[in-house]
Amino acid sequence: MTEQELTDKVVASFETARDDRFRELTRALVRHAHAFVRETRLTEDEWSAAIGFLTAAGHITTDTRQEFVLLSDVLGISMLTVAVNEAGPGSVAEAPQGPPSGRTTGLSQHSLAEATESTVLGPFFVQDSPEIELGGDIAGGASGEPSWITGTVTDTYGDPVAGARVEVWEADDDGMYDVQYDGGGLAGRAHLFTDAEGRYRFWGLTPTPYPIPDDGPVGRLLERAGRSPMRAPHLHFKVTAPGFHPLITHIFVAGDPYLDSDSVFGVKESLVRPFERHEAGTPTPDGRGLDGPWTSAGFDIVLRKE
Amino acid sequence: MTEQELTDKVVASFETARDDRFRELTRALVRHAHAFVRETRLTEDEWSAAIGFLTAAGHITTDTRQEFVLLSDVLGISMLTVAVNEAGPGSVAEAPQGPPSGRTTGLSQHSLAEATESTVLGPFFVQDSPEIELGGDIAGGASGEPSWITGTVTDTYGDPVAGARVEVWEADDDGMYDVQYDGGGLAGRAHLFTDAEGRYRFWGLTPTPYPIPDDGPVGRLLERAGRSPMRAPHLHFKVTAPGFHPLITHIFVAGDPYLDSDSVFGVKESLVRPFERHEAGTPTPDGRGLDGPWTSAGFDIVLRKE
Repeated sequence: MTEQELTDKVVASFETARDDRFRELTRALVRHAHAFVRETRLTEDEWSAAIGFLTAAGHITTDTRQEFVLLSDVLGISMLTVAVNEAGPGSVAEAPQGPPSGRTTGLSQHSLAEATESTVLGPFFVQDSPEIELGGDIAGGASGEPSWITGTVTDTYGDPVAGARVEVWEADDDGMYDVQYDGGGLAGRAHLFTDAEGRYRFWGLTPTPYPIPDDGPVGRLLERAGRSPMRAPHLHFKVTAPGFHPLITHIFVAGDPYLDSDSVFGVKESLVRPFERHEAGTPTPDGRGLDGPWTSAGFDIVLRKE
Repeated sequence: MTEQELTDKVVASFETARDDRFRELTRALVRHAHAFVRETRLTEDEWSAAIGFLTAAGHITTDTRQEFVLLSDVLGISMLTVAVNEAGPGSVAEAPQGPPSGRTTGLSQHSLAEATESTVLGPFFVQDSPEIELGGDIAGGASGEPSWITGTVTDTYGDPVAGARVEVWEADDDGMYDVQYDGGGLAGRAHLFTDAEGRYRFWGLTPTPYPIPDDGPVGRLLERAGRSPMRAPHLHFKVTAPGFHPLITHIFVAGDPYLDSDSVFGVKESLVRPFERHEAGTPTPDGRGLDGPWTSAGFDIVLRKE
């Protein structure tokens, strides 16, 4: 049996799958995995090392540590999956005859807005975050410099999306997410809902650079590759509203030195925002008294229809 | 950034690896993994399912249960790795000027023997098996029909390899390996050494068909694929001797209905052996008294020089 005959035989073994998509995916997986082994002439020791790597990744993975997501992230697989699933920059609502009849739009029918771009979910998303009021604080004990974040959620016609759920999460100024804390507990994450005009506002923390968890097999992979584990500073968003495609994205801090070497390839220019610095004592927009300096940033979000 | 630009950027990120082979492997891995995602237009839900699959495989894997090896096996990756690492059928010792000068060979210099073919290691190999004498019994409490296995270990010139370590392991007649027993303990595995004429002989068990462990994610994958988890009955061999390439192989039972549908694609025609059946009461070659029927099979092994 030649190498190609073996590949053909394995591909054929999935012919009996009842689900068309499952059959398509498994057969493609076999073809591409076999092409890798054949091209590299993978040795048996290297095969064993790969099994050992996956085993170690499995064993370090818990409810709050996801080494396989990290692996997908540092291999650019997560960002590529985002890319093949998003209409991409320049994607607008399908509107061959203009906006729905009789509808007043925030934009003229010839200036439809581009949907906001996506980026990786990352391994730190948690299903049940606390809800906060508009203008509330997501810190919940996470340390860092306060940052006033404001924006709108609209559709691609520029119309506000009221009641959109805006979910945000970020690391503290030690670069740690709450799920990485010893004691547990939620901090640096929350969700809130846009008002009738599609507006949202909250206190977060000025994002700081941090390494992805690098004490496991993925960290050793990066070390062997001579790659930095650092992520460009960012604040995560997940924005959902009935009838719209869910948006998973970040905003990044303009001017940060890590923007060009983000370890998970997550940076997109359209997501970089200036974080304006305010000296200690500068009054805040909501009258909150703060001892130290703070920052502010704006992020207007455009959702695309499902 | 286009999809191809993203792939190129990730490939380039491994340029800093100091080890040439590591760089080659990681870059090839990225290219082939990305080709899979692009070709299939992998959805985010499918990506999540893949992360969930790997996580479940990691969590079911223990010192004695290796789900990643099973996965590699059922995707034909293990057999392909065997194939790219073996000189293959027809491979003979390099002997442009005939056998080493002055050496007496078991074969004429024009009839060099082919090296025995390899097959998968499988997930049930254990490092420290008990040693048995020539003619000893590997069962150690494992249930099944006794089988008298004999053969020689030679080099490709036909010369005996004395003192070769012959390691054998197999499932009992319930299809279970010792490492799958609740209580632990070694059974159905042992190693012995060839005599001065390269001969070996031992009592094993007549191999029976069994399913690979199918109560985990790999079992569910096979079920969804409409594939059988059954392995063709076999007895594992690992044969090592100084100066020779280690041989990892099986012998299979001639006439078995599972030979054409082995779940790990491990069957090679050259490894199929008749297991001769002997009625209860038939004297055994070593004078051992047995109550019931038994079988016998021969397997002459040819090792290739390193």
